[in-house]
Amino acid sequence: LSPTAERPAERFLRLWSEVADLGKAAEVLGWDQETYMPPKGQAARARLLGTLAALRHERMVSAKLRDAIEAAAQAAEPASALAAQAREARRIVTKLASVPTRLARELAEARSNGQAVWQEARREADFARFRPALERVFELTREAAQHMALDASNPYDALLDDYEPGTTTAELAPLFERLRASLAAMVQAVVGSGVVVDERPVRGHYPPERQLAFCRAAAEGIGFDFEAGRLDRAVHPFCSGFDPGDVRITWRWMEEDFRSGLFGVLHEAGHGLYEQGLPREWQRTPIGDAASMGLHESQSRLWENQVGRSRAFWRWALPLLHEQFPDKRALGIDELWPTLNAVQPSLIRVEADEGTYDLHIAIRFDLERALFADELAIDELPGAWNDAYEELLGIRPANDAEGVLQDLHWSAGAFGYFPTYTLGNMMKAQLYTAARRDLGDLDSAFARGEFAPLLEWLRDRVHRHGARFRAKELVERASGRPLSADDHLAARAATVEAVYGVTV
Amino acid sequence: LSPTAERPAERFLRLWSEVADLGKAAEVLGWDQETYMPPKGQAARARLLGTLAALRHERMVSAKLRDAIEAAAQAAEPASALAAQAREARRIVTKLASVPTRLARELAEARSNGQAVWQEARREADFARFRPALERVFELTREAAQHMALDASNPYDALLDDYEPGTTTAELAPLFERLRASLAAMVQAVVGSGVVVDERPVRGHYPPERQLAFCRAAAEGIGFDFEAGRLDRAVHPFCSGFDPGDVRITWRWMEEDFRSGLFGVLHEAGHGLYEQGLPREWQRTPIGDAASMGLHESQSRLWENQVGRSRAFWRWALPLLHEQFPDKRALGIDELWPTLNAVQPSLIRVEADEGTYDLHIAIRFDLERALFADELAIDELPGAWNDAYEELLGIRPANDAEGVLQDLHWSAGAFGYFPTYTLGNMMKAQLYTAARRDLGDLDSAFARGEFAPLLEWLRDRVHRHGARFRAKELVERASGRPLSADDHLAARAATVEAVYGVTV
Repeated sequence: LSPTAERPAERFLRLWSEVADLGKAAEVLGWDQETYMPPKGQAARARLLGTLAALRHERMVSAKLRDAIEAAAQAAEPASALAAQAREARRIVTKLASVPTRLARELAEARSNGQAVWQEARREADFARFRPALERVFELTREAAQHMALDASNPYDALLDDYEPGTTTAELAPLFERLRASLAAMVQAVVGSGVVVDERPVRGHYPPERQLAFCRAAAEGIGFDFEAGRLDRAVHPFCSGFDPGDVRITWRWMEEDFRSGLFGVLHEAGHGLYEQGLPREWQRTPIGDAASMGLHESQSRLWENQVGRSRAFWRWALPLLHEQFPDKRALGIDELWPTLNAVQPSLIRVEADEGTYDLHIAIRFDLERALFADELAIDELPGAWNDAYEELLGIRPANDAEGVLQDLHWSAGAFGYFPTYTLGNMMKAQLYTAARRDLGDLDSAFARGEFAPLLEWLRDRVHRHGARFRAKELVERASGRPLSADDHLAARAATVEAVYGVTV
Repeated sequence: LSPTAERPAERFLRLWSEVADLGKAAEVLGWDQETYMPPKGQAARARLLGTLAALRHERMVSAKLRDAIEAAAQAAEPASALAAQAREARRIVTKLASVPTRLARELAEARSNGQAVWQEARREADFARFRPALERVFELTREAAQHMALDASNPYDALLDDYEPGTTTAELAPLFERLRASLAAMVQAVVGSGVVVDERPVRGHYPPERQLAFCRAAAEGIGFDFEAGRLDRAVHPFCSGFDPGDVRITWRWMEEDFRSGLFGVLHEAGHGLYEQGLPREWQRTPIGDAASMGLHESQSRLWENQVGRSRAFWRWALPLLHEQFPDKRALGIDELWPTLNAVQPSLIRVEADEGTYDLHIAIRFDLERALFADELAIDELPGAWNDAYEELLGIRPANDAEGVLQDLHWSAGAFGYFPTYTLGNMMKAQLYTAARRDLGDLDSAFARGEFAPLLEWLRDRVHRHGARFRAKELVERASGRPLSADDHLAARAATVEAVYGVTV
């Protein structure tokens, strides 16, 4: 090689940085669309995002990039960062390139159409209107998955791998089996306890600007850096990270209950802390982002649920709440805390409490597998959905809007996504248990508003590694044990006992 | 051609839409950077914009696009929209491709460095610190201009053409000659009149949120569509149009004087009205944008100065002002109006009134031509600048911060840009005169808050044509006369007479 020749690693990383930047540009445009874009900008924005996606795809599947990846993989020391970068690049590009251009275009159109039809169908609670669009999305998604799959007999795993790299149905099934049985028993015990948590002390009138001040203080308190991020209003809360130095979270609020806004912000700030902690030196490389959707969800849920719903957190946060809402000075931890940890079977996943959430996911995971195994047809979905809710949660949707039509995911072809929520719950519990083992008494630190020790631990064990290692490897390294449902179930049982006085 | 083959025009427009979208994406990212981006996002944003610019440039100068342009030009009917699209595409691409890659990269670096050094030098009022960086930017810009120029002996015209397509020094010089002499005489007459406009009735305390309400009402009143646009805070006011359906303007304010914020908003809203009126069917084609920077400036200045500083406008706007600032109810049009039209020699271009503004530009135009003609060296600039101010405006900068260091343009290599401001002044006066000729009494309409007739006239004569025709052609068609300084000077003379009682 001459001194000025580009080495394989440099060439690979340069080409990758271009596709990464096209993706980041699209993310900024997506954030803008959800926060500040005026309504009449919609059509042009959709075209613009379409162009960026097409340019990115074209470069992703180009022979130039694929050759550069292979050359870099050859040159990489085993177990080096470069080897991990080549591994991730190859995984992503091979899957993308395996889908014929014709199919990719049809799928993009079907997904776009699916989402539009779904919105109408949900509004009308009319599954029949959605069915043809969903069938098309499902068939095309399955066809694409068959192209992507290493094992063509199991296309569903290729989809799981999109969101949770390296994870298989065979690994997930026993975890869900265990969770389903234990959590269903806990729900039964809670319902049987006869205890009803009194929500009335929490209700009131919470002006939005004061909620915003409280939520910002909470996000800043747990470590979200507002010099490297923002909090804005949006219809749906979400987190977008363009760089560790630029992470945007959004929120919405209910005027009569501060909890909706606050826990939304803590959840998104948890995602945001992960994004702000990603490795700077690997930005715009294949390992600069989060290791998986499940691990990302573990970070949001750790801060929202393990920290934010703890008594210790509220010893710090309650005075801040009182400061913003002086008419709630009588609200104490003993009234507040049970309302943050109540368990109540309900129909809508996004409103579900931590005690029932994974049952919502288990139902979706079962239905997805049944669809992909040809054990269930699309038109049988509503009935199967309602039966499953009745069986696991003891309640039955009155219509499809509060049943099978409630989630966007399937309309957009995101089969295989739901399990990552529950993986996130298991990961967060196992990580949190390990952090408490390593750091000792976190409660008194929380009560003083000191969250830095926990954040530093997560930075060291999780954030700084980006996608260099698989999510489950990171969890196993940090905790010393393979990922299981144990810590999650133990934490749930302890909470249920504290709130409802039942041992499960 | 087979039925599915892409015809030359389709291929050209498809390829162009991609480069157009890369440019629009960069504009959204630029707007975000100036409004909402957190400070620590700066480095990643600069890299991201660098990638988009490089990808856009790569596609712009590709043989694929150039071949497509030529094929479309061959296929186009003379005087068709397609012919104009091919003409504009060829003009832009030929110039870009004529600059060697090595030079383009050096120039990009020199400009970026130039802007950084300029900021420091201005802060320190130290031209010596800026000189080497400016010399490098100037030499590289001239080298690039020589590559771009059809007539290599006149590289400056190639730069003028970047901002004002088709315009030459030979055309501009006599226009400026006339303006310089007449405006300098007016300034002398004003100074000699002994009349001093009393600014005191306008000063006060104007809370920003009330200024915002007033400015929004004014922008909405003249026709800016907030369903297709936004108004946000930024350090410098600007307008970005991503699509006729998505136009963003920004503002800043002074607490003690509402005029700074208001006229900034009217100016940017004027730009915004042009952007909102651009031809939808030609978006993402080479004629979907404004015809020139001068014509763009004519629209901002028409609404800011011809409309916003008229008595008729204030018959409508003053009650809105009183509503927001009840302690100013005593402020009447007779006190206010002269303060909006005062003439006062000053040192800083961006703060200059309409009576002196073009003299600031004339000075810069002279200096730029002298630099390109090798009649002036970079290190002679500060002295030449100060001498020119003394000669034309009767005042001399005390230091280079209020002299040659005040503008960003040269540090960024934007030689040839300044003349467009004065072209804008002449165009707006000629268009406004023609509109009044066609529409009759606009004053009583303004007094009733009716600005739609004027806006519709501009939409028809200017906005809807995009860049299909040259700016000067549009002005000539609308007014029936070639562009001249006549209407601008006549309007200035009438205003000066009304305020100062002097006939010039």
